[in-house]
Amino acid sequence: MRTFKLAIAYDGTRYHGWQRQKGQTTVQEVMEEGLAKIFGEPLSITASGRTDAGVHALGQVVSFSSGGRIPLQNIVAAARGVLPDDIAVLSAHLAPEGFNARFDALGKRYIYRIVQSGKQDPFRVNYTWLLGEKLDIAKMQSAAQYIIGTHDFSSFQASGSTPTQPERTVSEALWEHVEDELVFSVAGNGFLYHMVRNLVGSLVEVGNGQRSPEDFCELLAARDRRLAGKTAPAAGLYLKEVYY
Amino acid sequence: MRTFKLAIAYDGTRYHGWQRQKGQTTVQEVMEEGLAKIFGEPLSITASGRTDAGVHALGQVVSFSSGGRIPLQNIVAAARGVLPDDIAVLSAHLAPEGFNARFDALGKRYIYRIVQSGKQDPFRVNYTWLLGEKLDIAKMQSAAQYIIGTHDFSSFQASGSTPTQPERTVSEALWEHVEDELVFSVAGNGFLYHMVRNLVGSLVEVGNGQRSPEDFCELLAARDRRLAGKTAPAAGLYLKEVYY
Repeated sequence: MRTFKLAIAYDGTRYHGWQRQKGQTTVQEVMEEGLAKIFGEPLSITASGRTDAGVHALGQVVSFSSGGRIPLQNIVAAARGVLPDDIAVLSAHLAPEGFNARFDALGKRYIYRIVQSGKQDPFRVNYTWLLGEKLDIAKMQSAAQYIIGTHDFSSFQASGSTPTQPERTVSEALWEHVEDELVFSVAGNGFLYHMVRNLVGSLVEVGNGQRSPEDFCELLAARDRRLAGKTAPAAGLYLKEVYY
Repeated sequence: MRTFKLAIAYDGTRYHGWQRQKGQTTVQEVMEEGLAKIFGEPLSITASGRTDAGVHALGQVVSFSSGGRIPLQNIVAAARGVLPDDIAVLSAHLAPEGFNARFDALGKRYIYRIVQSGKQDPFRVNYTWLLGEKLDIAKMQSAAQYIIGTHDFSSFQASGSTPTQPERTVSEALWEHVEDELVFSVAGNGFLYHMVRNLVGSLVEVGNGQRSPEDFCELLAARDRRLAGKTAPAAGLYLKEVYY
């Protein structure tokens, strides 16, 4: 038995998220079935975290153990032969026995892409938030500063979810202009369910003037999901990197 | 009755091309059914030309006549409400009675996108040719010069097709580096079926050294499809503009 750590990328558009669900096509199911062919036995694959329907991955990390005898250096090319074109294995490494992509993750980085023009764009509708509002990126950056450090992020958890431990540490929160898009890059030791999309939803309300950066600071301090803005759409979100 | 001329864009990934076909989802069918809702009657829409399955449009032009009473300036927004997000009406104009997007077209411009790295890329597989060969763009440009002007393009027509008139006039044929891609832009008064994809297939064989630019010139002169290279994949092709 060897334990493997794979970095993967996927276009989440046609998947119902990472996690196996009855009657839905998910990345986990497609990967388990594809890789089982090259490992010669059923596999149970663990991701660093599930991604929701329509969310993309540029650097998701997964782990599994198998007695399959495929040479390590053949895995990337062999996976390309058995997986659909919208899921790519970027790299394959051996990991220590017991390695778990989810529980051993030290942190993650996400990016979120926004197009301000609001024009219909058939080529970006599944890959960005086509927003249609002029946003003040300087104000959004001022507000984003408040999330750096360790905070109780209850205001930004998914409605109805009640994590046992709502504190997370954010190490980076940066808005940048990239061509005609606004791109938010956020890194931290972990994220509550829907946290990045909820942060983006409320930061956009700072950008369009509905809230001030100080209001955003109070929102964070209030630890009350009902006060936050709407959840940004899944299409703009990318899991960029997982740290171990 | 008014006659309309619409510029449209679509992501061709999930469509079986422009033209209505029984049992397949096509852009024509989806547009006719969507726009019928805002015009209040069935429509028969003509495009400047059909695009194949997986081919994209940045500036396709379509025409139709209708007695529907929707104000001209409302069409773009109303279309957004009734069409799927991967088909966009970019502009709507009135045209003279009898205007026909196909027969009145004076010329077209296509672009073709190639990625040389050959790495699997889930986000570009449906939008480029992920080729995996180093190409010499200078040689490809030298060869492309030969198609400028009026020629019999029989060598680049689809296998098995026999157009009554295989002469076409090409006014521009340009290879450019755009970020990490090679992009071919070609304009002319018309194109035979599969002509752009067949040109790209043979020009790539110049770029990778299988043919010289002079061989390509002879290929054009030979007027024999059997001598040409393979047809480049649909995913890299975009109908950029139609001229009237």
